[in-house]
Amino acid sequence: MEPAGTTVTTTAAAAYPRKILDYMEGFLVSKTLFTACELGVFDLLASSQHPLSLEEVALGIRASQDGTERLLAACTGLDLLNTQTLDGQVMYSNTEQSSVYLTQSSPVSLTQSIHYSSKTIYLCWHYLTDAVREGSNQYEKAFGVKSEDLFEALYRSEEEMVKFMQLMNSIWNICGRDVVTAFNLSPFTTIYDLGGCSGALAKQCVLAYPECTVTIFDLPKVVKTSREHFVTNDNQRVSFHEGDFFKDALPDADLYILARILHDWTDVRSIELLTKVYRACRPARSPVIQVSIQRPSMSDGFLR
Amino acid sequence: MEPAGTTVTTTAAAAYPRKILDYMEGFLVSKTLFTACELGVFDLLASSQHPLSLEEVALGIRASQDGTERLLAACTGLDLLNTQTLDGQVMYSNTEQSSVYLTQSSPVSLTQSIHYSSKTIYLCWHYLTDAVREGSNQYEKAFGVKSEDLFEALYRSEEEMVKFMQLMNSIWNICGRDVVTAFNLSPFTTIYDLGGCSGALAKQCVLAYPECTVTIFDLPKVVKTSREHFVTNDNQRVSFHEGDFFKDALPDADLYILARILHDWTDVRSIELLTKVYRACRPARSPVIQVSIQRPSMSDGFLR
Repeated sequence: MEPAGTTVTTTAAAAYPRKILDYMEGFLVSKTLFTACELGVFDLLASSQHPLSLEEVALGIRASQDGTERLLAACTGLDLLNTQTLDGQVMYSNTEQSSVYLTQSSPVSLTQSIHYSSKTIYLCWHYLTDAVREGSNQYEKAFGVKSEDLFEALYRSEEEMVKFMQLMNSIWNICGRDVVTAFNLSPFTTIYDLGGCSGALAKQCVLAYPECTVTIFDLPKVVKTSREHFVTNDNQRVSFHEGDFFKDALPDADLYILARILHDWTDVRSIELLTKVYRACRPARSPVIQVSIQRPSMSDGFLR
Repeated sequence: MEPAGTTVTTTAAAAYPRKILDYMEGFLVSKTLFTACELGVFDLLASSQHPLSLEEVALGIRASQDGTERLLAACTGLDLLNTQTLDGQVMYSNTEQSSVYLTQSSPVSLTQSIHYSSKTIYLCWHYLTDAVREGSNQYEKAFGVKSEDLFEALYRSEEEMVKFMQLMNSIWNICGRDVVTAFNLSPFTTIYDLGGCSGALAKQCVLAYPECTVTIFDLPKVVKTSREHFVTNDNQRVSFHEGDFFKDALPDADLYILARILHDWTDVRSIELLTKVYRACRPARSPVIQVSIQRPSMSDGFLR
């Protein structure tokens, strides 16, 4: 307990911890966004021809009026909704970004990613302190699934696997084109995407480079699910190769892509993988692209 | 599933959803900060005479080296730690804000607030969707405590009550002075702080205004805990009044403070409380101060 008269001398820079308070509130902001998506607020407003009142939204999403009012107010404060007053009544509508990214029918929808973040990752991260202490994933505490390996846990059922693949899919739908065109990859025609998952980045690659073919190299069960849910037969320049990139030989290629892969592994295993890729490279031709779309030094690989 | 050739036309404003992606990452940022606090990273670095290596930090906080390395990298990316390279080795030290706000011994420490946010609020908010749908708090799902009333759940044990009061305490230690000096309150000498909890705002008030006395009006069990843990006898101008501000009469005062109170209640109950305060006011003298320190429209009262 501090004495009543304590005053603290700090420099101007440290005078008010706005940044730290923002960090402390981060999870409130995330869950507000997630809940509005889960309840279908943005879908409801997108399907309406005109802005809706609180009563109409609460009825439409089948939620309590008090809870809905607080949620809509929070979303408005976060610039996820617009409000206008008509005849003294507040009316809500989507912002442009909400229409584009937070409605299920949008081709660049983030809703699948948001569902996965809200239901799975959020709860896993509740055990982050234990994860750092033990250096191991916490899926057992979060979901009762004991697992030495991250992907055993992520892929513990086909349903979970599809959800995880939808997460990866929605990320690449948004920034995949920017990633594959950040460098001119047109000299490379035979491309392997190691851990290519749902194939969203592969699709962006063949769209950007009409001469290339991209082979998705992933575990057999991932390939099976990807064929069923994500890659249709009309993607003729996207194909599959079943394998484990730690255990199996890598086929010849002009270019290997490792996108959001290395952060899942320790330095030792990452070096092992990169060494293997280096040895498989066609001499003097094949570079490797490692992509990680994150804030600098903010790893999402904590729960390895 | 979107066809491979889908492209989306958006205006420049909606072209890349940086803000939404930041919101989606908010909980990762919160938990990174919380975990670094819980493991004592900032305390360890504050107690050291010189910057520490990864190995020294991992040993000092008794955590895995891989997990610690990822945690320190994330904290550095969030500007919570400084790094420098000595003889080819990365060395970590606290930033000024981390020293002031994230170490347990600091008089304006946020660590108690962070522990409460991490252990209690974070898990409650996992059930936000149900809370909005049902319009009721989710303590039963989160902690097995069935409760109609928010404060029954918050105060379900003395330990939980102390933790909640520490949270309130650390908030007012940081911004209480700014709040009580935002207006000149020197004309008011008999002040009641309704729901004054740990008394941290009351202490800031008597510090700022040497003529006033502040009486903390709160539930009997809160008053008991506040006397035991937060308000020492040498705070002669801070006293207590046991009561329930909905049920019991309000004593006469020059000024009533309602700080972080109304967001806990529905509009109906808030109006009931404000009407009661208005009627208790000494004619033509007593204003009411309602304080809510939050982002605009971002309510922390979701789980009422």
